[in-house]
Amino acid sequence: MSQQAERDRLVEIRRDLHRHPEPAWREFYTTARIVEELERIGVDDLYVGPDAIAEDARMAVPDDEELDEWYEQAHETGADEDVLRQLEGGYTGAVAVLERGDGPTVGLRVDIDGLLREESTDDDHEPAAEGFRSEHEGAMHACGHDAHATIGLGVVEAIKDSDFEGTLKVFFQPGEEMIAGGKSMAESDHLADVDYLLAAHVGLDHPTGEVVAGLDGFLAVSHFRAEFSGEPAHAGGEPNEGENAVQAMATAVQNLYAIPRHEDGATRVNAGQVGGGTATNIIPEEAFVEGEVRGETTELKDYMKERAERVLESAAEMHGCEVDITTNGEAPSAESDEELVSVVGDVAGETAGVENVVHRDELGGSEDATYLMRAVQQNGGKAAYVGVGTDHPGGHHTATFDVDEDSLAVGIDVLAGAIRDIAADRP
Amino acid sequence: MSQQAERDRLVEIRRDLHRHPEPAWREFYTTARIVEELERIGVDDLYVGPDAIAEDARMAVPDDEELDEWYEQAHETGADEDVLRQLEGGYTGAVAVLERGDGPTVGLRVDIDGLLREESTDDDHEPAAEGFRSEHEGAMHACGHDAHATIGLGVVEAIKDSDFEGTLKVFFQPGEEMIAGGKSMAESDHLADVDYLLAAHVGLDHPTGEVVAGLDGFLAVSHFRAEFSGEPAHAGGEPNEGENAVQAMATAVQNLYAIPRHEDGATRVNAGQVGGGTATNIIPEEAFVEGEVRGETTELKDYMKERAERVLESAAEMHGCEVDITTNGEAPSAESDEELVSVVGDVAGETAGVENVVHRDELGGSEDATYLMRAVQQNGGKAAYVGVGTDHPGGHHTATFDVDEDSLAVGIDVLAGAIRDIAADRP
Amino acid sequence: MSQQAERDRLVEIRRDLHRHPEPAWREFYTTARIVEELERIGVDDLYVGPDAIAEDARMAVPDDEELDEWYEQAHETGADEDVLRQLEGGYTGAVAVLERGDGPTVGLRVDIDGLLREESTDDDHEPAAEGFRSEHEGAMHACGHDAHATIGLGVVEAIKDSDFEGTLKVFFQPGEEMIAGGKSMAESDHLADVDYLLAAHVGLDHPTGEVVAGLDGFLAVSHFRAEFSGEPAHAGGEPNEGENAVQAMATAVQNLYAIPRHEDGATRVNAGQVGGGTATNIIPEEAFVEGEVRGETTELKDYMKERAERVLESAAEMHGCEVDITTNGEAPSAESDEELVSVVGDVAGETAGVENVVHRDELGGSEDATYLMRAVQQNGGKAAYVGVGTDHPGGHHTATFDVDEDSLAVGIDVLAGAIRDIAADRP
Amino acid sequence: MSQQAERDRLVEIRRDLHRHPEPAWREFYTTARIVEELERIGVDDLYVGPDAIAEDARMAVPDDEELDEWYEQAHETGADEDVLRQLEGGYTGAVAVLERGDGPTVGLRVDIDGLLREESTDDDHEPAAEGFRSEHEGAMHACGHDAHATIGLGVVEAIKDSDFEGTLKVFFQPGEEMIAGGKSMAESDHLADVDYLLAAHVGLDHPTGEVVAGLDGFLAVSHFRAEFSGEPAHAGGEPNEGENAVQAMATAVQNLYAIPRHEDGATRVNAGQVGGGTATNIIPEEAFVEGEVRGETTELKDYMKERAERVLESAAEMHGCEVDITTNGEAPSAESDEELVSVVGDVAGETAGVENVVHRDELGGSEDATYLMRAVQQNGGKAAYVGVGTDHPGGHHTATFDVDEDSLAVGIDVLAGAIRDIAADRP
Repeated sequence: MSQQAERDRLVEIRRDLHRHPEPAWREFYTTARIVEELERIGVDDLYVGPDAIAEDARMAVPDDEELDEWYEQAHETGADEDVLRQLEGGYTGAVAVLERGDGPTVGLRVDIDGLLREESTDDDHEPAAEGFRSEHEGAMHACGHDAHATIGLGVVEAIKDSDFEGTLKVFFQPGEEMIAGGKSMAESDHLADVDYLLAAHVGLDHPTGEVVAGLDGFLAVSHFRAEFSGEPAHAGGEPNEGENAVQAMATAVQNLYAIPRHEDGATRVNAGQVGGGTATNIIPEEAFVEGEVRGETTELKDYMKERAERVLESAAEMHGCEVDITTNGEAPSAESDEELVSVVGDVAGETAGVENVVHRDELGGSEDATYLMRAVQQNGGKAAYVGVGTDHPGGHHTATFDVDEDSLAVGIDVLAGAIRDIAADRP
Repeated sequence: MSQQAERDRLVEIRRDLHRHPEPAWREFYTTARIVEELERIGVDDLYVGPDAIAEDARMAVPDDEELDEWYEQAHETGADEDVLRQLEGGYTGAVAVLERGDGPTVGLRVDIDGLLREESTDDDHEPAAEGFRSEHEGAMHACGHDAHATIGLGVVEAIKDSDFEGTLKVFFQPGEEMIAGGKSMAESDHLADVDYLLAAHVGLDHPTGEVVAGLDGFLAVSHFRAEFSGEPAHAGGEPNEGENAVQAMATAVQNLYAIPRHEDGATRVNAGQVGGGTATNIIPEEAFVEGEVRGETTELKDYMKERAERVLESAAEMHGCEVDITTNGEAPSAESDEELVSVVGDVAGETAGVENVVHRDELGGSEDATYLMRAVQQNGGKAAYVGVGTDHPGGHHTATFDVDEDSLAVGIDVLAGAIRDIAADRP
Repeated sequence: MSQQAERDRLVEIRRDLHRHPEPAWREFYTTARIVEELERIGVDDLYVGPDAIAEDARMAVPDDEELDEWYEQAHETGADEDVLRQLEGGYTGAVAVLERGDGPTVGLRVDIDGLLREESTDDDHEPAAEGFRSEHEGAMHACGHDAHATIGLGVVEAIKDSDFEGTLKVFFQPGEEMIAGGKSMAESDHLADVDYLLAAHVGLDHPTGEVVAGLDGFLAVSHFRAEFSGEPAHAGGEPNEGENAVQAMATAVQNLYAIPRHEDGATRVNAGQVGGGTATNIIPEEAFVEGEVRGETTELKDYMKERAERVLESAAEMHGCEVDITTNGEAPSAESDEELVSVVGDVAGETAGVENVVHRDELGGSEDATYLMRAVQQNGGKAAYVGVGTDHPGGHHTATFDVDEDSLAVGIDVLAGAIRDIAADRP
Repeated sequence: MSQQAERDRLVEIRRDLHRHPEPAWREFYTTARIVEELERIGVDDLYVGPDAIAEDARMAVPDDEELDEWYEQAHETGADEDVLRQLEGGYTGAVAVLERGDGPTVGLRVDIDGLLREESTDDDHEPAAEGFRSEHEGAMHACGHDAHATIGLGVVEAIKDSDFEGTLKVFFQPGEEMIAGGKSMAESDHLADVDYLLAAHVGLDHPTGEVVAGLDGFLAVSHFRAEFSGEPAHAGGEPNEGENAVQAMATAVQNLYAIPRHEDGATRVNAGQVGGGTATNIIPEEAFVEGEVRGETTELKDYMKERAERVLESAAEMHGCEVDITTNGEAPSAESDEELVSVVGDVAGETAGVENVVHRDELGGSEDATYLMRAVQQNGGKAAYVGVGTDHPGGHHTATFDVDEDSLAVGIDVLAGAIRDIAADRP
C-alpha cells in the first residue's frame, strides 16, 4: 500500500474511533472495530473480552443498566455482532499476538477508552469542522486514546511486514481514564511471558516531531468511594434517635486532609465529591465521599490508603454509622528502565519526522500502564513509557483537545523500530 | 342543602384537591378550585395571588422553569384561566372576606399546599382504592391540607348562613410545608385589622371526635441554604492552588452541631442535606449545606441562627471560600391565648360528633401559622391554634396518610361555632 | 448551756473548720475535729473513715504524695492521732448514730469538704478581719460546708436532748465539691435502713431567715478524664511515624460538643480543661481532656456519657492512639418527696428566726446528695433537700464567700424540728 | 604552646562551657567566658551583647523574671561583672574581629546556647564520670554548641597566628536551639561586608574523622504561639454565655493539619503543644497552640505560615474568640555555594585527623545559620555549611549526648585552613 494510502487508512480508523468514544468497560464499538482491523491485518492469536483480561481484577464496573445502554448503542452503530457477544457484561479490550520465530516476547500497551465530557462544536475544533466529532453526546476522546488504539494497530501491521524475530503482543487496554482497567490486564496470563514492555502516550504538551524516551514521575494512586449509613430521625422531634451519616462524613473529610505528611516524599489526598442527607429536617442517614489518595511511590500511596481507611472507619464508628469502602481504581508508581529508554531514544533519533528527542521527563500525574510495567519488571523483564509528541490545540481532558494526525505515523515508526531493535539486541 | 348533600360536596372538593397536590407557590389548580368554590358561595371580597399576600415576603420561591411546569399542568387539568392568570409567577393563595355588620374581625387561617412525596398505590390506602390518589406523580397531600382548605370553604359557607355579626376573613395560605408562605400572608394588609385569629390542623395522632383547644409548643425554626464557592485545582498536580469548598463545608458541619446548648430551653440544628465537588481528582470548588435551626422560643431560634451564620462564614473564610446564605423558610414560636382556647373548648364540648375535648397539648414541631398568630397578638388581638382529630391510617408525611372525611364536618362546626361565639362575646 | 454559750460554741467550731479547709479525701483535720465533737456530745455509734463509706466507690482519690502532704499538715495542726490513723489512705468522713428507742431511722447528710481556691485577705472579708481566714493557703471553705458540718453537729446535740423516738444517723460526707464522695457514702451499709433522709445547703442566694423546703432541679452529672497516648516523632523529619494524641483530642473535642441534643430535655457537655504535647517540633504523644456531661435526668446524663465515650474512643482509634477514660465524679438527678417537703415547710414556718418559707425552688446545678436521696427512695424511703438561707457577701465559690453565723441556729432548729416531726408522724 | 597544651586548653574551655549550659538569651556565663578568652587571645575588635546583634530582631526573649534568674546564676558562678553588665536584658552573644591587611572579609558562625533538658548522671556518660556534667540542673549542652563555641575560639587563635590576609569575623550566636537568635545576628551591621561565610556543626551521626563539605536540605521553619481568648461561663447553668476558646483551638488544630500539600515540595505542620481551660465545669476562656510550620524552601514555609494564620484567625472568629499569634522563632532555607564547598572539601582532604570527606549531605532539619547564609548570599557573597564529625554516644538532644574532644582540633584545622584558602583564592 502506498504511504499515503496507509496514512489515509490510519486517519480513517482514528476518526471512526473518535466519533465513538466509550468510557471504561463500555468500549464495545471500539473493541469491535479494533478486532475487525486485527482480523483484516491477520494475527496469530487474538484474545477478546474475558479472554484478554483477569475478570476479577476489573474495578469500577458500571451497573447492568449502564452497560446495557452502551452495548445497545454499539449494536445500533453497527458493531460486529459476534465480537459484541464476547464483550457482554462489560468485558472489553483485546490482546493481539504475532508469533515470528525465536526471540524475546515484546509487549506494547495502548489504551482505548474515552472520557465523559462534552466535545466542542466550535468550527475551530477540527473534529467538528471535519465531521468526526463525537456521536455519543457527553462522551469524547479528549486524551488521544483514539490515536493510541490506531498506533497499536499500525504497529501490528508494521511488525508483521518486518524482519522482527520473536513474539509481539499488543495490549488494547480498556478503562485507563478511571485507572480501572490496568490491573485486570496486568493480571491476565498474557503478560506473564513478556520480556520487554513499551507503553506510549501522545501529546502531554510535547509538539509533533518530539519524542520522549522515558516518561516517569507517575504518582501511585487509589480512588475510593466510602458510603456511610446511619439512622434517620426527625431533627426537631427526636434528634437523639438519629445516627448522623453527614456528621460522620464531615468528621472523615476533616481528618482525611489531616493525614500526616510523609518523610519519604510527596503524598496527596482529596475528597473530590461528597454528599448526604435527604431533607432539611431529617437527621441524615446516608452520606458518601468519593476521593483519592496518591503517593510518589506505591508505598506512599499505600500509607495514605491505610490511613484514609482508618479515618473513614473511625468516623463512622464515632457517629454510630456503618461505612462501606470500595476501591474504584488504582495504579502503582513505576520507572522506565534505562536500557529500553536508550533503545527508544536511539531509534527515535533516526526516525523520519522526529525533530527532537527528550531523554526522560516527568509526567506528574497517574496512569495505570504502571501495573503492566511493574508486572513485567517483577518477572525480571524491562519496561519503558514513551511520549509521542503531537500538536494539540486544547489541553488534555478539555473540550477542544485534538491530535495532529501526522504524529500517528511517527508513533508507529518509533515504536515498531524500537520493538525490532529490542528483539534483535535484547538489551 | 341536605346535610348529606353538604357532606357529599365537601368530600368531593377534598378529593379533588387530594388528586391535585401542589407544593409551595405552585398551588395553581388548588387556588383556582378554592376561588371557584368561593365564587359559588358568594363572598363580599376575594383577594387572589399577589393581592392576597406581601409579595416580597415570599420565601423559597422555585425558579421560573419549575413554576412554568406546574402552571402548565394546572392549565391542562382545567383550572380556570382567569384565576390562573392572576397567579402567574407563583403568587398563589387567597383571602375571602364576609362583611356581616358591626362586630369584630375574626380570621381563620388554613393552609393549602401538598408535599413532594410519592403516594401509596396500596389497596388499603383509600385514595388509591377509591380513585382519588394523587394525579401529580411524586406529589401528595400527606398532611391533610386538602382537608384544611375544604374546612376553610365550609366555614365561609356556615358563617354566611349564620347570625354572625362582624367581619370574617379566611386566609387560604400557600407554602406551609416549607414554612415559606406564612410570613408573606402575615405581612399582607389583610391581617392588620384582625381582632381574633384561629388556625387549625387535622390529625396529629388525635382521633376523629377529639378536639384540642390550644395546640402549643411550636418550635421556632429557620431553614437555610449555604453555598460555598472556592477554586478548583488538580488534586494531584497542584493541590495548593485550590480553595476547597468541601473542606469549608465539613468544617461548618462539625461546628454547626457543636453550637452551645442554651440555658433558656431546647434548641435544634441539622445539616439535613449536603453536597459538593465535581470529580475525584479535582479540589472541590463548590459545596452546599441545606439545614435548619430551631428553638423553643423565637429568641432561641435567633440565637441558633446567628451562631450558625458565624460558623458558616468563618468556615468559608478559613478555606478561602465565599459563602452565600439564604433563608429558605422561617417561622417564630407562638402561644394560644387562653381566652380563645376557652371559647373553642366550650364550643367543642357542645358540638355533635365531638367526644373528647383536650385542653391544650404540645405539638413539638414547627408551623408558620405562628407568623399570623404573632402578628395579630402584636396588634393587640388574640389567637389560638386548634386541633381537629381525625383517624389517619399512616403517619403525617408518609405515603399512606389519609384523613377520616367525617372529621370535615366536625372541624367546620367547631370553628364556625367558635367564630360566632367570639364575635358575640369578644373575649 | 445558755443559748449564747451554745451559739458561741457553734461559732467556734465553724471558725475552726473554716481555718482548716480540706478538699476531697483530704478532710483529715476536719474529720478529726468532727469526731472530737461527737465524742464530747456522746453518740451511740460512731463510724469513721473506711467504716463510714464504701471504699471502692470513692472517686477522684488523689495520689499518695498528695494525701501524705495533707495528712502531715493535719498532724501538725494538732488533729487527734487516733482518729488520724483511721483515716490513712484518704478514708475521710464519719457517720454518727443516736439510738432513741422505737421509731423510724431518719438520716441527715451534711458535706464537709473545702475548695482549692485562695481566700480573700480583704478587710471587708470577715474571716480575714476576725482572724479565722484559711490557714491552708490555696484552699478555702467557699461554699459553706464548714457551716454544714457545724449544723450536723448541732442537730446531733439537739436531737440527743429531745423527745425524738427512733434512730438518727448523721452522715458527714467528704468530697462533695468534686462530686466524688456521695457515691461511696450512698453505697455504705449505713444508708440501707434509713427511712427518711434530709440533706441541706446554706445560702444559694437565699438570705438569712429564709428556708427553702424542697430544692430541686439537680442536673445529673458525670466528670471524666480522658488520656490519649500515641507515639512521638520528629515533626520535621518523620511526621508519618507519629500517632498524634493532640489530633485525637481535637477531633474528640469537636465531636463532643456536637453530640445530638435530646428530645427528653436539657443536656450539657464541656471539655473544661485540655492539654497535650511536649515540644513545638515533636508530634504529640500525650493529650488529655477533663470534661463533664450533664442531663436533666440521670437517663439524659447516661445518654451523654455513652455518646461521649464513643466519641473519645473513636477519636483515639482514628489517630492510632489509646485512650484511658476515668470517671472522676458523678451524681444522678433527684427530686424531693412532697411529704417531707411539707413537714420541713411546716416546721420552718414555726421556727424562730425564720421569716420566709419558700415551697420548692430550682437549684440548676449538680450535687451528689442525690446519690443518697435516690438510694433511700429506691429502698422505699423518702428524701428531701432543704435550703437554709444565709446572707453571703460574695458568691459561692468566690474568694469573699462567707456565711452569716446566725443562720447556724436556724438550720439546726429547722432540721432537728423536722427530724422530730418526721419520726413522730412518719409521713 | 605545645600541641598538647593547646588541646588541653580547648578541652578545659569546652568542659567549662559544658558545665554551664544556658538557653536562648540567657547565655550570660557563656558569653562572659567567650569574651574572656577572646581578650586573652587578643582581637582587633570585639562586639558584645547589644553591639553584636540587631536588638529588635530577637525572637522568643524570656520575661524579666526568667532573665534575672539566669543572670544572677551567672553572677554567682563568677562571670566577669563588666561583661555581664553589657548583657543585661538578655543581649547575649559576641562578634570577634581580626583585621589582617588587604583581603576579603571571611565570617565564621558558631552557636553557643544549651538546651532545657536534664543531663544523664550515668557513669557511662563521660561528663558525669569526669566531673563536668551540667551544674545548671535541667539544662544541658546536648547538641554540641559547647564544642562549637570552643572551635570558634580556636579558629580565632589559629588565624591570628597565620598568614591570613583579610578580615576575619567570628559570630558567637545565641539562641539557635529555639531558632530565635539567627535573625538578630543576620540583621546586625557586622554581616554587611562579609564576602564569605562558613558555619559548622559537629556530629549529626558523622563519626570523628569525617568532614561533610556542604550540609544542605535545611527546612525553612517558623514557630508560632497562638493564644485564644474567649469568655468563661458556667457549663451547666449558662453554656450559651461562653465563647469557647478550646473549641476554637480544636477547630484550628483539625484544620492546621489539613492545610493542603504543595506541588513545589515538602511542607510540614505541627501543633506541638496545646492547652486550655480552667475547670471541668467552666466553658474555657483561654487556650493556646504552640506549633510550627516548615517548608523545603522559604516560599513553602511562607505558604504554610500564611495558611496557618488564616486557619487560626477564622477558628477564633468562628467561636467568638480573639487570637493573638506570635512568631517565636524562624529560619529560612539555604544552600551551600559549590565554590566554598569545594575549598572546604580540598582542605579537609589534606587535614590531619580527617579520614573521610563527604561531598554534600542532607540535614533534614532546621537551623538558623540560614539567616546569615542568605544575608551573605543576597549581598553577593558565598556561604557554606560544614559538618565536623564527632563520635557521639547518645543522639542529639538526648541526655547522654557528648562529643569526642578529639574532633575539636579537627574542626579548628579544617575551618581555619578553609578560611585561609578562601582569603587567598577568593573563589
